[in-house]
Amino acid sequence: MRRKLTPLQRGRVDIREAASNTRGVVCEAVRDKRWITRTALPEDSMDKPNIVTCTAPVNIAVIKYWGKRNEDLILPINSSLSVTLHQDQLKTTTTVATSRSFQEDRIWLNGKEEDITHPRLQSCLREIRRLARKRRNDGEAGLNLTGMSHKVHICSVNNFPTAAGLASSAAGFACLVYTLAQVFGVEGELSGIARQGSGSACRSMYGGFVQWIMGKKDDGKDSLAQQVEPETHWPDLRILVLVASAERKQVGSTSGMQTSVQTSCLLKHRAESVVPERMVEMIEAVQTKDFTAFAELTMKDSNQFHATCLDTYPPIFYLNNVSRQVINLVHRYNRHYGETRVAYTFDAGPNAVIFMLQQHVTEFVQVVQHFFPPDTNGGQFIKGLPVSCASLSKDLEQAIGLEPMPKGISYIISTKAGPGPCVVEDHLLGSDGLPKKTT
Amino acid sequence: MRRKLTPLQRGRVDIREAASNTRGVVCEAVRDKRWITRTALPEDSMDKPNIVTCTAPVNIAVIKYWGKRNEDLILPINSSLSVTLHQDQLKTTTTVATSRSFQEDRIWLNGKEEDITHPRLQSCLREIRRLARKRRNDGEAGLNLTGMSHKVHICSVNNFPTAAGLASSAAGFACLVYTLAQVFGVEGELSGIARQGSGSACRSMYGGFVQWIMGKKDDGKDSLAQQVEPETHWPDLRILVLVASAERKQVGSTSGMQTSVQTSCLLKHRAESVVPERMVEMIEAVQTKDFTAFAELTMKDSNQFHATCLDTYPPIFYLNNVSRQVINLVHRYNRHYGETRVAYTFDAGPNAVIFMLQQHVTEFVQVVQHFFPPDTNGGQFIKGLPVSCASLSKDLEQAIGLEPMPKGISYIISTKAGPGPCVVEDHLLGSDGLPKKTT
Repeated sequence: MRRKLTPLQRGRVDIREAASNTRGVVCEAVRDKRWITRTALPEDSMDKPNIVTCTAPVNIAVIKYWGKRNEDLILPINSSLSVTLHQDQLKTTTTVATSRSFQEDRIWLNGKEEDITHPRLQSCLREIRRLARKRRNDGEAGLNLTGMSHKVHICSVNNFPTAAGLASSAAGFACLVYTLAQVFGVEGELSGIARQGSGSACRSMYGGFVQWIMGKKDDGKDSLAQQVEPETHWPDLRILVLVASAERKQVGSTSGMQTSVQTSCLLKHRAESVVPERMVEMIEAVQTKDFTAFAELTMKDSNQFHATCLDTYPPIFYLNNVSRQVINLVHRYNRHYGETRVAYTFDAGPNAVIFMLQQHVTEFVQVVQHFFPPDTNGGQFIKGLPVSCASLSKDLEQAIGLEPMPKGISYIISTKAGPGPCVVEDHLLGSDGLPKKTT
Repeated sequence: MRRKLTPLQRGRVDIREAASNTRGVVCEAVRDKRWITRTALPEDSMDKPNIVTCTAPVNIAVIKYWGKRNEDLILPINSSLSVTLHQDQLKTTTTVATSRSFQEDRIWLNGKEEDITHPRLQSCLREIRRLARKRRNDGEAGLNLTGMSHKVHICSVNNFPTAAGLASSAAGFACLVYTLAQVFGVEGELSGIARQGSGSACRSMYGGFVQWIMGKKDDGKDSLAQQVEPETHWPDLRILVLVASAERKQVGSTSGMQTSVQTSCLLKHRAESVVPERMVEMIEAVQTKDFTAFAELTMKDSNQFHATCLDTYPPIFYLNNVSRQVINLVHRYNRHYGETRVAYTFDAGPNAVIFMLQQHVTEFVQVVQHFFPPDTNGGQFIKGLPVSCASLSKDLEQAIGLEPMPKGISYIISTKAGPGPCVVEDHLLGSDGLPKKTT
């Protein structure tokens, strides 16, 4: 539903779009529709909620973040770099509504009301409100003052199962902060606020290739995400998420990295002496689209992260037999061709995220299907971007020579790099400020 | 078969025994019998082989050796420390015979003739012969000159299956070098020669608690094993080897450590900055019999070694699901009691070696049997030193709360710290210089 805008409103939309473009956070589909709902809300409807809905992406780190130097502000012990995954496949959608009729702040996550007093949620709410007040006090023109002191209702859903073990908190907090910012009319740098919800959420505030610069300041003001290259930079880079048969995570990442910081001497060395150099090399590899360098660094950094988990006391294991089979499979595949065509990375869970160039996708998917024969009774094995069919060569099958692991992988999500958060029109909250029945 | 000795011969035996005692390498059972066979060989029997048989132990490192700074001389990048396991449970037996009638050097390993030209075998043969010549040239009194230039026949067997994944090369080369030394009348420091057969073999030259000092010299002359404490030092320390269901080792340790040295930045840091301090702490823990310190360092060092394997590119995995279940089980067991009662360590394979004090053996074995229910059709589950029966408390079972893993562990070898190599009487080679039919 698109409303007619005054020339002034139209102009503001254009300026904001231009600003957003430089941060690479505009979704093509909603380019003309963003900011509208909020700014066009008429004065006479103040009892109706002011309502905005946004989506935000999942990101996957290729230089890993593991360990905080400040638990409250979520300041990391090293910089990290990620690729933002496309929201056509994986996204969080969040609606925020404010109304003077709301009695208290409330939140619904994936259809269930949750405790809004969670400290990290409170950090994000507090920081956005603080920024809004600051802007009001600075007397900024065109600021939407409506709802500044109102309570908020928040409703958020993922389009992927939490059990998939993907970093839903990154997309979730990025989406929350981005949406709150729209509602309260806050602009500019928001990754520092998202960071206080969940460290890696700051990287989900941008599309494409994103670094989280660790910063040096004690107050964390310089610990921010920054886009290295937009999602359009490397169009033939493709991504597969291999969802391993669901297992519950043994150790959550928050407590895991705490224990690692306290007990692993290898982690300290990694953060201080290994990552700084790798960040420079990775940025160079991304900027020059050097797949070999990108792939090898990605694999080495994933392995080193899991090595520091093992060096933790008591040790933490996130890789399982399926993960190890994927790792062996990738190395044997690359060895067969005498070049690095495929790379894996694993976060705090057994799912593999695979990077490769477009021209190798069909064959590699065949390899995965052969060595992880899917459950024939199950649904679609390959979801997302279409993958052509082909038969696996005997030559390649023998070169890999692993024992097939039936049902080790539940399904594959075929995707690519994508844009940052964006505004959409379909709200999850109704005009009564409560979740719509359909969610 | 004991022969009568001349007073001179008798005296020499005593002196040698005394020397051996300080190195803790005397087996009680053969104390009165060693050196006899060789020294008593009459001049008129020179066509008959000069024959000696010895046994040597397996050792298990608690501060791990991984990585060489010199591949030919087998010089390590860090010092290491091990416990010598008792030969009543695990040993290699080696017979060496020399005779002027032998046409060539030959070797039989576990019943099969093998290639004697293997470079590491040749290193040991060459070094022992060099030492023997040096002693002859130095005109040492009482040296047995017989057979100095004769060819050798070597026959060696383990009393445990190679498939058990225990470090058989350490016991094997220690036994070879020790036996050759007896045959050629070489005494004194032999660990430097054993080291050139297999690095960790140098530690199997002594009983009890043994450190391998990495040394600094380029020629490796100071890279030697040294006894920290004899096997009698800590009588209530008990050891269980949990033999995981046999799997072939993916990557051999020689090539594995080569790749690690070349590619793992964490290994370099470990060797230079972590191990030196840990060696000091471990020696202190052993000397003071501080089980908590000993156990925690042992577990941390095992985990760190496997972490550096994972940081290797391509990564190396030695731990499997059974190993990880053992690790979790030990930590949960210790957590239940609020103290570190049990420790694990893993070498380049999935078998766990468990350390604990005598008073906890019965209960911990019950725990292992419960969470790794043995194959009821199989043989004896617990081999070696007897373990009392007891039933597992529900309380403890629930506190551990893992999903049992049937047949994950094939059997347990119950053992303790033991002595170094020693001379025995039962030869593996007959008077014809060929393996006896029974072997």
